Amino acid sequence: MDISVLGEARYPSPLSYHVSDKARVPFRVIVDPDAPLEDEELYFEVAGPRERLFFDPRKTRAGIVTCGGLCPGLNNVIRSLVLQLHHGYGVREILGFTNGYQGLDPWRASEPIPLTPEFVEDIHMEGGTVLNTSRGPVDVSVAVDTLIRRKVDILFVVGGDGTQRGGAELVHEARSRGHALAVVGIPKTIDNDVPFVTRTFGYVTAVNEAAKAISCAHTEAHSVFNGISLVKIMGRNAGFIAAGATVASQDVNFTLVPEVPFVLEGENGFLEALKKRILHRAHAVILVAEGAGQHLMAGGEERRDASGNLKLKDIGLFLRERIESYFNAENVPFALRYFDPSYMIRSVPASAEDAILCDFYARNAAHAAMAGKTGLVIGQHHGVFTHVPIDLLARQKKQLDLNSPAWQGALASTGQNFAQFPN
Amino acid sequence: MDISVLGEARYPSPLSYHVSDKARVPFRVIVDPDAPLEDEELYFEVAGPRERLFFDPRKTRAGIVTCGGLCPGLNNVIRSLVLQLHHGYGVREILGFTNGYQGLDPWRASEPIPLTPEFVEDIHMEGGTVLNTSRGPVDVSVAVDTLIRRKVDILFVVGGDGTQRGGAELVHEARSRGHALAVVGIPKTIDNDVPFVTRTFGYVTAVNEAAKAISCAHTEAHSVFNGISLVKIMGRNAGFIAAGATVASQDVNFTLVPEVPFVLEGENGFLEALKKRILHRAHAVILVAEGAGQHLMAGGEERRDASGNLKLKDIGLFLRERIESYFNAENVPFALRYFDPSYMIRSVPASAEDAILCDFYARNAAHAAMAGKTGLVIGQHHGVFTHVPIDLLARQKKQLDLNSPAWQGALASTGQNFAQFPN
Amino acid sequence: MDISVLGEARYPSPLSYHVSDKARVPFRVIVDPDAPLEDEELYFEVAGPRERLFFDPRKTRAGIVTCGGLCPGLNNVIRSLVLQLHHGYGVREILGFTNGYQGLDPWRASEPIPLTPEFVEDIHMEGGTVLNTSRGPVDVSVAVDTLIRRKVDILFVVGGDGTQRGGAELVHEARSRGHALAVVGIPKTIDNDVPFVTRTFGYVTAVNEAAKAISCAHTEAHSVFNGISLVKIMGRNAGFIAAGATVASQDVNFTLVPEVPFVLEGENGFLEALKKRILHRAHAVILVAEGAGQHLMAGGEERRDASGNLKLKDIGLFLRERIESYFNAENVPFALRYFDPSYMIRSVPASAEDAILCDFYARNAAHAAMAGKTGLVIGQHHGVFTHVPIDLLARQKKQLDLNSPAWQGALASTGQNFAQFPN
Amino acid sequence: MDISVLGEARYPSPLSYHVSDKARVPFRVIVDPDAPLEDEELYFEVAGPRERLFFDPRKTRAGIVTCGGLCPGLNNVIRSLVLQLHHGYGVREILGFTNGYQGLDPWRASEPIPLTPEFVEDIHMEGGTVLNTSRGPVDVSVAVDTLIRRKVDILFVVGGDGTQRGGAELVHEARSRGHALAVVGIPKTIDNDVPFVTRTFGYVTAVNEAAKAISCAHTEAHSVFNGISLVKIMGRNAGFIAAGATVASQDVNFTLVPEVPFVLEGENGFLEALKKRILHRAHAVILVAEGAGQHLMAGGEERRDASGNLKLKDIGLFLRERIESYFNAENVPFALRYFDPSYMIRSVPASAEDAILCDFYARNAAHAAMAGKTGLVIGQHHGVFTHVPIDLLARQKKQLDLNSPAWQGALASTGQNFAQFPN
Repeated sequence: MDISVLGEARYPSPLSYHVSDKARVPFRVIVDPDAPLEDEELYFEVAGPRERLFFDPRKTRAGIVTCGGLCPGLNNVIRSLVLQLHHGYGVREILGFTNGYQGLDPWRASEPIPLTPEFVEDIHMEGGTVLNTSRGPVDVSVAVDTLIRRKVDILFVVGGDGTQRGGAELVHEARSRGHALAVVGIPKTIDNDVPFVTRTFGYVTAVNEAAKAISCAHTEAHSVFNGISLVKIMGRNAGFIAAGATVASQDVNFTLVPEVPFVLEGENGFLEALKKRILHRAHAVILVAEGAGQHLMAGGEERRDASGNLKLKDIGLFLRERIESYFNAENVPFALRYFDPSYMIRSVPASAEDAILCDFYARNAAHAAMAGKTGLVIGQHHGVFTHVPIDLLARQKKQLDLNSPAWQGALASTGQNFAQFPN
Repeated sequence: MDISVLGEARYPSPLSYHVSDKARVPFRVIVDPDAPLEDEELYFEVAGPRERLFFDPRKTRAGIVTCGGLCPGLNNVIRSLVLQLHHGYGVREILGFTNGYQGLDPWRASEPIPLTPEFVEDIHMEGGTVLNTSRGPVDVSVAVDTLIRRKVDILFVVGGDGTQRGGAELVHEARSRGHALAVVGIPKTIDNDVPFVTRTFGYVTAVNEAAKAISCAHTEAHSVFNGISLVKIMGRNAGFIAAGATVASQDVNFTLVPEVPFVLEGENGFLEALKKRILHRAHAVILVAEGAGQHLMAGGEERRDASGNLKLKDIGLFLRERIESYFNAENVPFALRYFDPSYMIRSVPASAEDAILCDFYARNAAHAAMAGKTGLVIGQHHGVFTHVPIDLLARQKKQLDLNSPAWQGALASTGQNFAQFPN
Repeated sequence: MDISVLGEARYPSPLSYHVSDKARVPFRVIVDPDAPLEDEELYFEVAGPRERLFFDPRKTRAGIVTCGGLCPGLNNVIRSLVLQLHHGYGVREILGFTNGYQGLDPWRASEPIPLTPEFVEDIHMEGGTVLNTSRGPVDVSVAVDTLIRRKVDILFVVGGDGTQRGGAELVHEARSRGHALAVVGIPKTIDNDVPFVTRTFGYVTAVNEAAKAISCAHTEAHSVFNGISLVKIMGRNAGFIAAGATVASQDVNFTLVPEVPFVLEGENGFLEALKKRILHRAHAVILVAEGAGQHLMAGGEERRDASGNLKLKDIGLFLRERIESYFNAENVPFALRYFDPSYMIRSVPASAEDAILCDFYARNAAHAAMAGKTGLVIGQHHGVFTHVPIDLLARQKKQLDLNSPAWQGALASTGQNFAQFPN
Repeated sequence: MDISVLGEARYPSPLSYHVSDKARVPFRVIVDPDAPLEDEELYFEVAGPRERLFFDPRKTRAGIVTCGGLCPGLNNVIRSLVLQLHHGYGVREILGFTNGYQGLDPWRASEPIPLTPEFVEDIHMEGGTVLNTSRGPVDVSVAVDTLIRRKVDILFVVGGDGTQRGGAELVHEARSRGHALAVVGIPKTIDNDVPFVTRTFGYVTAVNEAAKAISCAHTEAHSVFNGISLVKIMGRNAGFIAAGATVASQDVNFTLVPEVPFVLEGENGFLEALKKRILHRAHAVILVAEGAGQHLMAGGEERRDASGNLKLKDIGLFLRERIESYFNAENVPFALRYFDPSYMIRSVPASAEDAILCDFYARNAAHAAMAGKTGLVIGQHHGVFTHVPIDLLARQKKQLDLNSPAWQGALASTGQNFAQFPN
């Protein structure tokens, strides 16, 4: 997958090591004679510093914007972008646009923040984002007006797939206006559901925090007779956090994810399986991703949030009500506790593992931008950081592979056994 | 306040240090000529090992029961009771009754657990209680039947004031049956609202965990435009956790506690004060104890839980709805996030500070029981562990003194300024 | 104990609640007819805001200095001093002198830092002190020159007893020069060995961190055959941290403190007891306070640090060597691991409990100073914050009471049994 | 790389998903036309459950042994092995040999521990290993005697490369005796220096803990004038922990690793660079891997530990002495603090990330063994778990690739600039 470049890279890099522009990694890495590839293999550019730059660092102005929900590591990404641009390349002007894409609209935003090494010195110690964030699309025309007026050559976009699609539109609009704008995205999804990216930053921290919440849920369930703890967790389209937290905590008995619709009622249904567990073991922990079981809550009006995402129906409250009704009807005493820890999971600082990941994403984004590459996000496959065209990213969502260790490990850890139907 | 004793203490203690039975501490310790005491001063026995024991350790059988909601440190208390009785005094038979007071009813409970040093070795590493817990009163007659049948001489009761009142009834019933039963209570309330006890175990751990949740709430509020985080916390009758967490975190802007009814609407009301804060600073954190603002939710049916506690109306959801309506009506954009971390606060293991406190409470309870004292709980005043008659405990609840550093510190930390009326 | 005042308090306090200047708390609170007091009881002033101030807040300039070794909570103290002075009283000029008492010497220090609410906003999130610190006495004459030249009316001194004695000298020198200087101290000793102060800030955090280190030591000892973990901890003159961490962790088998000299060799000595434990249980954890066992390392030159404290001989390395020799001589295989976690214990941010304590100490110090009191430190007895004359503080050190729950709890937790001789 | 199998796999697997025996992943995944591969590519078997088993689960007996130094996650590995064998395959007899390879010698070991789901239920909550560990080689003949006598069909070996080589010898010896023994290794090195394994378990947890220690070191250095904190960390042959912790903490100014010998003295040497930093910024943090700078400490006797590893000279103490001498000679005041946190890093429980990794390693080891594969360890390349022949593993050590993001990120984070010479 070739990446657009703004023009010839003429300036020598001040960095001492470089990655060849021709290096590639394949999308798939397993070779199996019994399962030949059906379509052509994708190859991605390897990220890293290039020998020659498109932008003259002394004359370059960069901007950064963070969009969408909070995710551990946002401040780490901002910080490493600033340090790599400033110390690594000698870029002296870096603007932080505030409140997500609203920050590119002068009618809706305050002045951007000049980002210096001093300003970002300690920001990685705290969760959240010092640039603030918001949901909602970018007004492409207004945004490119702003970028041209403020002489911004490079825009780093930290956000989800909708945000990155907006970044691609900025590239097209800027090109049509003759402004050489490099837009480089850093994929941000705590759910880890971006294709062509093994692991997005913040995901591991979220799993670690989720495991703590599950440990509390386990203690609550385990300390009363027939205790049931129901934990709702992030995961709109994909159950990566749920599966990861299940394996990490080893305390979950039922894991419900969007990829695996399940039967609620009847002999092989979830409620019956839960009852058996309670009668047998006298406590249970249920972990449900917010996007699971949507098929069970038919009807009603469809609603969307400011980012255009379909508003999910609340599977947590739905399950709580159904479990209570069922156990009451079955005359089985129980004590149900409901946990909704998502805001406490996504607002913590990044763990060491995610801090490292953020640093690599950010520095590779700086390298790509300085080389004049545009319309891409930084990806990661097989342990290698890559360049992924935004257009490709937008084509699909990543979901749990039900034959992966991630999901099979969750099944083994829970031992769950009720009617589930892979999507 | 003299404590009932079962009879003459005839057996020499195996311990090498002792506290005089005559040592006392006064309830009040501040002397102020301008504010003379209006009623007679209370003096409490000092807790600690006595020179002579009522029970012969080799022939004594003890029981332990944990009741009510979870609280950090329950397992520490169980463990230190067992170790002090076993290693300190040589008591060899200790029974753990399960599921709270239900464990004293053979029709509702499984067999009690024999508690040994091996069994309790690592239990303090986990939250919850290995004996399980339940709400609800003790069936006094059935329970004393059980205690006599099982030849239990000493019962340690870990629970709140209702639970301790139940313990007092067991003393009376046993006495009327001619069974020399020592009942020694260890007060358990995460809310810290027991009179004559400076600090109950679990409270400090709860404040520490609450401060973490508030830090997340602060990050969420601070990372979006006009972000409001509303955190509901424990505190049915008293705002000790709310006040402590406010001072500990320094991130709260409005602290609402049961002791201070407040005005919601109008020029000096809470909503107007919140709006001013948002317009001025663009983010706010509200911490509300579950028992606050009950006067605002008039009407409806009164409900009680299995322990007989009045079911509170949900001030958290009430405030959320009222804030949303108000800001919408006032046409002020905002983003409200709701936090309900109570189950994640009370189910963690005890912090070092609480671990120490649990150890002291438990060992002093063992000392009191071996000396033949009954119908008391272990208290703590002015840094000294004491004996408090259960009857005295049940007379009142402890609430925040609004002139104490605890509340004045919370006011100073928030700087909150709206119409509040001390109870 | 009356506290010196600079003059008549004429200005009304802007605060709405006040503590009477006549309120007192006794030093001792336990009444025991069998153990009558031998000397006259001490009574201490109760700390808190006074109705009238000596200093006119609008014209007052305050200074803060932090001295000696790091301690969790230093930044919390600085922050709450600034916030109470600024928001509570309306004091607008607060100077932070840097590098301890060196900051009062213009030849050795850089300019003091103007301390504002903005500057201190987030400092409590980090360990250490933003004002830096150093050891060594104050040059009284130079310091008072500086304070007069910079028109400093109030100096807050955060440090140990040597530092506080220096503060008293500043009071005397300033008085002799006719400069009305309030010096108010906040006692800082991670060892918790200040008399008339139940608990100094940082101590609980230190115990919590020490317990984590001990947990690691226990794991190491427990995971190999005949594993011995030897942990050296703070505690020059007093074993409060060692005793607290022993009870908190419940993993220590031998606790050695300065208050209890012990026998190393022979049948009842420590080495023999350790060997018995290893032969019996195959692992052991030893916790030694740095001031323990000094009597065992006779001879050699006495050395002092910059603060004038006697340099201790290293009991940790001494014990390591002696244990190794002894076990080799006895032909008992063993694996000894040595832990020296002190720097990792004292440099962390304050726990919630200590954060609250720091807030109370700091605000009470501000109250005392604004009322014109001088030559005192803020103390705490029986849960009440007090005013303690510096001169009284300097008379003695606080040590573990060997009949207190603190030490008896440690003995019960370890079950240690070898020849020890209370000082 | 084909893996030895014990014979035909005849028994159907009870598991519902399988991985083809023909699936392979290449060792290298980057394709670069400018850097063609010089030697033949290695391909590794993909790990996972196989369709048919060699061992009949009902008749199979497995053993587990843990060897070498502690590493976070050992108990997780033991636990997941037991659960996968028991619940996944129906294996009922699992023996835990204690004290490392000594446990296979009946003269040096106690009875092995029968490992059941109940026994392992909570062991992952604690660091260390419930099976204990030791250093030193296996006595091959004695060990195979034991395995035959106890009818052990499968031995899981958790340990470093020396340990794994011992496992290979067990395979050869058992084969020569006609005993069908599957030996499957799980590589254990906190240093992450095993070839063909992207990430060993425990490494991420170690980096996370190391980052905490560095944060303390930074606070200490930052809170005094010219503070220097010197932190010695694990890393005998490879600087992965040092590099990871440098990037994770962002607080290190000099990172010294075995892969990069450095000049100590002279104009471009480390000491001069440190002095410049101190004169310019007044504080510095140095992180040194234990295997760094060995070339600087010439002479002396070579010593080896029980595992046969060369005993390193202590670069930490060496550097401390040299820094002190240099700064004294240069007449630059300084305050040096030394940190040696290794035992506190390796003895903690596994983080969520490592808990997941341990689960995958263990379950894949069980799958390989049940399929009759022997003489292999579980590897991980490009995110895929693999089978690596032990013989291949033993050929080399893994070191930091100096052009990798790991090391380049460390260089960028420190900005260090003094004479270093890649090995």
